[in-house]
Amino acid sequence: MERVTMADVAEAAGVSVATVSYVLSGKRPVRPDTRAAVEAAIRELGFTPNTTARSLRTGRSSLVGLVVPDLANPFYAQFAAALQERLRDLGLHVVVCNTRADRSEELAFVREAAQQQFAGVVITPFRLTAKDLELLERAGVPVVVSADIRLGQVDRVAPEARSAMRAALQAVTDAGRRRIAMIAGPRDATGGDPRLELLRELARQFGTELPHGLVVRGEHTRAAGAEGFGELMSRRHPPDAVFCANDVIAVGAMDRAEELDVRIPGDVALVGYDDAVFASLVRPRLTTIRYPAQAAGEAAARLLRERIDGRTVPRTVRVKAEFVARESV
Amino acid sequence: MERVTMADVAEAAGVSVATVSYVLSGKRPVRPDTRAAVEAAIRELGFTPNTTARSLRTGRSSLVGLVVPDLANPFYAQFAAALQERLRDLGLHVVVCNTRADRSEELAFVREAAQQQFAGVVITPFRLTAKDLELLERAGVPVVVSADIRLGQVDRVAPEARSAMRAALQAVTDAGRRRIAMIAGPRDATGGDPRLELLRELARQFGTELPHGLVVRGEHTRAAGAEGFGELMSRRHPPDAVFCANDVIAVGAMDRAEELDVRIPGDVALVGYDDAVFASLVRPRLTTIRYPAQAAGEAAARLLRERIDGRTVPRTVRVKAEFVARESV
Repeated sequence: MERVTMADVAEAAGVSVATVSYVLSGKRPVRPDTRAAVEAAIRELGFTPNTTARSLRTGRSSLVGLVVPDLANPFYAQFAAALQERLRDLGLHVVVCNTRADRSEELAFVREAAQQQFAGVVITPFRLTAKDLELLERAGVPVVVSADIRLGQVDRVAPEARSAMRAALQAVTDAGRRRIAMIAGPRDATGGDPRLELLRELARQFGTELPHGLVVRGEHTRAAGAEGFGELMSRRHPPDAVFCANDVIAVGAMDRAEELDVRIPGDVALVGYDDAVFASLVRPRLTTIRYPAQAAGEAAARLLRERIDGRTVPRTVRVKAEFVARESV
Repeated sequence: MERVTMADVAEAAGVSVATVSYVLSGKRPVRPDTRAAVEAAIRELGFTPNTTARSLRTGRSSLVGLVVPDLANPFYAQFAAALQERLRDLGLHVVVCNTRADRSEELAFVREAAQQQFAGVVITPFRLTAKDLELLERAGVPVVVSADIRLGQVDRVAPEARSAMRAALQAVTDAGRRRIAMIAGPRDATGGDPRLELLRELARQFGTELPHGLVVRGEHTRAAGAEGFGELMSRRHPPDAVFCANDVIAVGAMDRAEELDVRIPGDVALVGYDDAVFASLVRPRLTTIRYPAQAAGEAAARLLRERIDGRTVPRTVRVKAEFVARESV
């Protein structure tokens, strides 16, 4: 079979070759009916652009990798949707890579993105180091880090959570709670746990503190939340307020509280982080610190676009978190 | 800077070039400590395999695209994890593409996967036709469809939900409910709504039926679930049992029930589909039909592996669904 060309598609659709090219690349807007005609012709003729040629020419795939530690955390679904929305007009497509917080999987995706010459990578690293990310830099793939932590000289989207965390502490102490605990992330996570550091610092300002025995650590999973909560409740002096590194952990804490017949917030106040979609579904509804996924995804897209447009100096964009009072404090 | 070669990496790691190649391709198992040494050398030297060359040689990327209509539905996170787990030893990496049930985004990802010569595509089509999938076939990219519907001559993973749906109807009718309704998927979805067809058929066996006015349609979203439930409750003779095309829709129905002060299950019994992770989080806990994401993801991996190994005749694998009785019936 002879290879179908762009010219064949253009002829079948009754448009110019340039228009076919715009539909394929997404580089310029094309009227919906024109686009439909071109797409119909592409399907009908079975046209497949010659990508090896294209890739040799432009040296770039149209894929942007969003590398996340936990696809089951709905925060990332919203983040991904916002990122895709803001990159669509460049003809870029977001694919989500789930590392399950496993360093070797993080490395595998970073390497793959470098090899395949992705158009960009947005990553929430969990166990990667700044050094690992240099692999992308050397391959000329723009990187945006979405995390609380610093990680080398790269673009970054990070929460500004100080005032939200302060409001959470205010609510907890207003409710008469004094023995504050945290179920934090794992000790070996990249950059430690900035949410724990922030809570520790602010707690002091409230004239209280996080006793050493009231900080437990685990993965960002529901199972780890259950385990952490159980551990805290087994202390000789258990806490009367528990902060969690994210909402998934908080839901695990609620599971265990129910098993142990610990009332929330009657016996223990509970504060999450993220405001994931299920935070308002659980009972009691989860009081949490809302890190807006949509705004964070949009900021990541903005940083990536600026890189693609040629900016070379790294930038950090802060996205404001806010305290959401529901029923668990 | 001179280009770092595989030989340089092999020398630095004190292994053979073949071993470096196995670490990169994942084609043969490599001892963890050897792998670690090679990875360290790769990082240290900043080695990037020359993929354009590799791609010209093997004609294949190591990416498998999982194309789904709604990344926010946790069903797909579990499915993706199982798929990844079962493809890892082939050196394949799963990337998730979220189409938001939008036909043009579905087409864009299918086209991208064909162009980039993905190692495979697993897709839950929402508005694509069999014709659209031929694009992948022509590009030589193996396809597995994960859906209730038939879609051309391709490999398929589909639920076997008959006995589970019968058990759900039994529970609903045992609870004295007779006016059965469904919040189904959109009318223009590929292959219609097989869950609706199945319910309709089985309802007749129970000596009841789904009156025309008690089938409402919408997207597979929480907002559509709320709207659908509101619509049903505004009927002159509202239903006393509502089946939903998935759990996300059911949660939307619960939102609206709360606003309307309709008690579940007191006034209306509610049945979901999927057993998404939040089904046991909502109150009342959602009674649902569990379609096991893990088993479905594993079946998809199996089909893909067989294709890669050379099987050419399409196969369908059925994954058994089960009725999960909780509190909403």
